[in-house]
Amino acid sequence: MSKIQDLFERLISGNRVALGKAITLIESRRQADQEPKSQLLELCSGADSSRSVRIGISGLPGAGKSTFIECFGMGLIANGHRLAVLAVDPTSDRSGGSILGDKTRMDELSMQDGAFIRPSPNAGVLGGVTEMTRETILVCEAAGYDIVLVETVGVGQAEFGVATMVDYFLLLTIAGAGDVLQGMKRGIMEMADGIVVNKADGDGREAAIQTAIDLRSALSLMTGGSQSHVIRVVTASAISGEGIQDIWQQIVEFIDDSRSSGKFDARRKQQQTDWFENAVDYQLRTRLAFDDELRLLKERLRERVEAGDLHPYAGASAYIDAIRDSR
Amino acid sequence: MSKIQDLFERLISGNRVALGKAITLIESRRQADQEPKSQLLELCSGADSSRSVRIGISGLPGAGKSTFIECFGMGLIANGHRLAVLAVDPTSDRSGGSILGDKTRMDELSMQDGAFIRPSPNAGVLGGVTEMTRETILVCEAAGYDIVLVETVGVGQAEFGVATMVDYFLLLTIAGAGDVLQGMKRGIMEMADGIVVNKADGDGREAAIQTAIDLRSALSLMTGGSQSHVIRVVTASAISGEGIQDIWQQIVEFIDDSRSSGKFDARRKQQQTDWFENAVDYQLRTRLAFDDELRLLKERLRERVEAGDLHPYAGASAYIDAIRDSR
Repeated sequence: MSKIQDLFERLISGNRVALGKAITLIESRRQADQEPKSQLLELCSGADSSRSVRIGISGLPGAGKSTFIECFGMGLIANGHRLAVLAVDPTSDRSGGSILGDKTRMDELSMQDGAFIRPSPNAGVLGGVTEMTRETILVCEAAGYDIVLVETVGVGQAEFGVATMVDYFLLLTIAGAGDVLQGMKRGIMEMADGIVVNKADGDGREAAIQTAIDLRSALSLMTGGSQSHVIRVVTASAISGEGIQDIWQQIVEFIDDSRSSGKFDARRKQQQTDWFENAVDYQLRTRLAFDDELRLLKERLRERVEAGDLHPYAGASAYIDAIRDSR
Repeated sequence: MSKIQDLFERLISGNRVALGKAITLIESRRQADQEPKSQLLELCSGADSSRSVRIGISGLPGAGKSTFIECFGMGLIANGHRLAVLAVDPTSDRSGGSILGDKTRMDELSMQDGAFIRPSPNAGVLGGVTEMTRETILVCEAAGYDIVLVETVGVGQAEFGVATMVDYFLLLTIAGAGDVLQGMKRGIMEMADGIVVNKADGDGREAAIQTAIDLRSALSLMTGGSQSHVIRVVTASAISGEGIQDIWQQIVEFIDDSRSSGKFDARRKQQQTDWFENAVDYQLRTRLAFDDELRLLKERLRERVEAGDLHPYAGASAYIDAIRDSR
């Protein structure tokens, strides 16, 4: 049995160390890892992932994402689900830590047998979505996790990215961030399948409820009353647990509806296409980096660009010519 | 005289129509436009752009970016500068308009002889930075604009992008967005050279001043008192004009200091390298799209991926193999 076959066997038998190793392989940019990576993905793609649920959870820092995921996740585990969380690593940004000193994240959840938490390696730049997030989801599903949560941070590129990878996209916000959210370009809010106004507890409860009302009117204005894509807005408290169970019910209903209407399949199909385009870009970049001759040429061109002898655009043209001429 | 030479001559003589045409050519993805585009960039890269100042201005929607740019820009024009603004087009996002109904942007500035405003074509996805923003800056400089402003929206990818293209990166915020900002990962704030708390007027004046104080302490905690990169935080009102002139003075001082310390050149040099990498990606993508055989193969692979016959990652591998085999 080949090493990869062996890794795959251990992975599907539920071995967490094997799953961790598999994801590290998936994320590797080393030349020697590319062929084993393809083999592993080939094996994992044989598994049926049509019953899994992929959920994106996004929000600005301070929206309480990790506390929410902990509370939400514990509920799923209690109901017998197996949950993988692809989390933003708060220590991975360029300065080595968030201002909030957010060091203990999802402590309780991470100790559950049914949960697997994997921090994303470069959250600082991409907000939690990497070029290998799709492949990582696939491997988690092959390992028997029926729910995969992808956490992203920030409002922008990362959300556009994750929305093309999941079956349900949940936006987390809090009261007071309402004006920011309402000022947001429509594009991002319209990508959401549901919005949660978190921290609806204690003194903040009334404000959260008001924010949810404001958001509902804003969304209703935006969509002009069209019923094709209703974005549900609810309040919840990850501290008291209030409203959290309802969110899961809401997701289940959404998934059931979209499965029976065929939207689920259509969305997954579209995502396969996006994935293909993404994989083309990734493999092109990595393979070119492995060709010694091309790498040397590129270095020489880069030096001339840096020295001001060559315009960047012209330098790039010379490099592309060489790719097409080499083989 | 070739058509491109002619376009270039008109452009450097200050013809605005020619500049508009040149930028449209730069942004074109049509095969027939790629060679003329290279020629035009070659001509423009001959111009001395070492005296120009490139400024990135970013902030969440609602921070008052367009009003700020209008007020800031009018001051520059009055001082004899020629200003090009690469602006976020509020009507370009996927729903065709912002919630704020922000239709009249920079009306006064756009009527000035010394100002040229160009809306970015795909602000919805990239927040105002396109893959051709660097080339567009170059063309504006060749056309005699000594200050180029690049506006971006959102907090995330777009800011990382624009920070690698400009000499000075200005973050715009408002009072009340303070907690959001303070919760931001350090990475983005540290990229800023200056932060402006806008809308410091009327009832909001005190709150803006307090937010500036809070931001200064947060930044001082973050940098641990290091003096290598002092991020100046000021308040301003684009309505009353208070503080706006000071911001330009601050930028001039920063640029003068960095010119004499050699940091300006070092930063530009680093940006040339980034530009080169960026141009490689862009040209690779466009050229591959022009190869009929490869395009057909890719379509066939994509169809198999959509039909579920082929895994996206394996499909991508097959396509890359074909690129290396063709020539």
